[in-house]
Amino acid sequence: MRKFCIYGKGGIGKSTNVGNMAAALAEDGKKVLVVGCDPKADSTRTLMHGKINTVLDTFRDKGPEYMKIEDIVYEGFNGVYCVESGGPEPGVGCAGRGVITAVDMLDRLGVYDQLKPDVVIYDILGDVVCGGFAMPLQKKLAEDVYIVTTCDPMAIYAANNICKGIKRYGNRGKIALGGIIYNGRSVVDEPEIIDKFVEGINSQVMGKVPMSNIITKAELRKQTTIEYAPDSEIANKFRELANSIYENKKTTIPTPLSEQGLDELTESIEELVRRKYE
Amino acid sequence: MRKFCIYGKGGIGKSTNVGNMAAALAEDGKKVLVVGCDPKADSTRTLMHGKINTVLDTFRDKGPEYMKIEDIVYEGFNGVYCVESGGPEPGVGCAGRGVITAVDMLDRLGVYDQLKPDVVIYDILGDVVCGGFAMPLQKKLAEDVYIVTTCDPMAIYAANNICKGIKRYGNRGKIALGGIIYNGRSVVDEPEIIDKFVEGINSQVMGKVPMSNIITKAELRKQTTIEYAPDSEIANKFRELANSIYENKKTTIPTPLSEQGLDELTESIEELVRRKYE
Repeated sequence: MRKFCIYGKGGIGKSTNVGNMAAALAEDGKKVLVVGCDPKADSTRTLMHGKINTVLDTFRDKGPEYMKIEDIVYEGFNGVYCVESGGPEPGVGCAGRGVITAVDMLDRLGVYDQLKPDVVIYDILGDVVCGGFAMPLQKKLAEDVYIVTTCDPMAIYAANNICKGIKRYGNRGKIALGGIIYNGRSVVDEPEIIDKFVEGINSQVMGKVPMSNIITKAELRKQTTIEYAPDSEIANKFRELANSIYENKKTTIPTPLSEQGLDELTESIEELVRRKYE
Repeated sequence: MRKFCIYGKGGIGKSTNVGNMAAALAEDGKKVLVVGCDPKADSTRTLMHGKINTVLDTFRDKGPEYMKIEDIVYEGFNGVYCVESGGPEPGVGCAGRGVITAVDMLDRLGVYDQLKPDVVIYDILGDVVCGGFAMPLQKKLAEDVYIVTTCDPMAIYAANNICKGIKRYGNRGKIALGGIIYNGRSVVDEPEIIDKFVEGINSQVMGKVPMSNIITKAELRKQTTIEYAPDSEIANKFRELANSIYENKKTTIPTPLSEQGLDELTESIEELVRRKYE
């Protein structure tokens, strides 16, 4: 069973990537399980063409003893199995711990044993790399982590923090960084800056997803690009990305940038934005 | 001492608003203290023209017994006092709890007593309204909360979650919602949708900040708009907003939208995006 996590700042295309990679791997004959670990519970939206009940909501409604696999695992596009962890009630509890409770529940219900997926993809929010959202790293839910980032200072800042989390737990042999997924959709699209970041953290770029209206149109229809425009170039990009991550053997313990290193990257991005605006 | 919190999803203009409101109130003769409560520690960047040492970093470096007010309180543009809470080391601890530790430290050092600010503004990350980031609500750091949102489903989702947090603690007489700050900077700029949201949650719009290149240019210079373009229309918008929040007496316990209500708003926004793209 191949297991990996996708982390990244909220709103920069984590779920778009996860949905499309899952659809691509399923198309290729693999049994895929996607576990959305964002309290917003919309990771699997394009695979399911809408929302599904979350593990934590079901837990609260039914109680753990009455929960069944079919209450929380849904079959979506291309037969991809979809689960959403959900989150705690706003204002109480630890959102990250909620994610772990949900994942433990999958184990207890025998989801992995019964469905026997070939691939499990965890889609995890990376805005705040506190102890809670680092739990999937600490508990080694997966072998390797892939981080989605755009060429935006805040996205890179979040990616660097995720690297710090991986380094903390990776040094104990628990988890490693597989690579960076570069999403071209932001004010500045400058692959050289991402290359510099990736070199600095001692990793590799797994692929680039260019900015594309096709992706936006697909999302607006609550569909993956693989479903909406299967013959498009961009769908092929997702297929390649999915494959290179599935096959990837090269992982590293990242070396996060120092504050100064981050500031330098931010400066170069801001210089490019400045040129655009002035 | 007038104290209020600004909450909102990361990256949608919280700090831009806080910096400009602080600059405007200071211009008006008030002593203003801004406390940035985002682990990223960039809330006061435009007031300070760069970064400052955070409370938690200083705490870790010096130890609490050797900390002095001048180690953590910096004077920025227009004499605004600036503090950044900072956050825990990535991967461990609770980021929200870190914020509270930092704020407690301000109290212990006598920052409020010695500086005697007329206004204290807390700038708080609202991506994840877990127990940690809800602590400022629970502990009643301030009288009222203002939420920044754009006309984007994820920003409105976050705003609605913040309302759930306020409702939880507001019902115990601790904290109330002052109103919504509408930031026009997103793919869709449709005030009617924001009005509908605000009506639904039983609140009011405190002001609208239109999309403007002047704001972007100011930020790129690490300046507030009040400093960069003091005579601009947009600077006046910030002055009006600051004043209406400073004077505001009308607060409510919000009535957060149901999931269905949120879905309807999302649908109307997506319909507008669709028209743009097709």
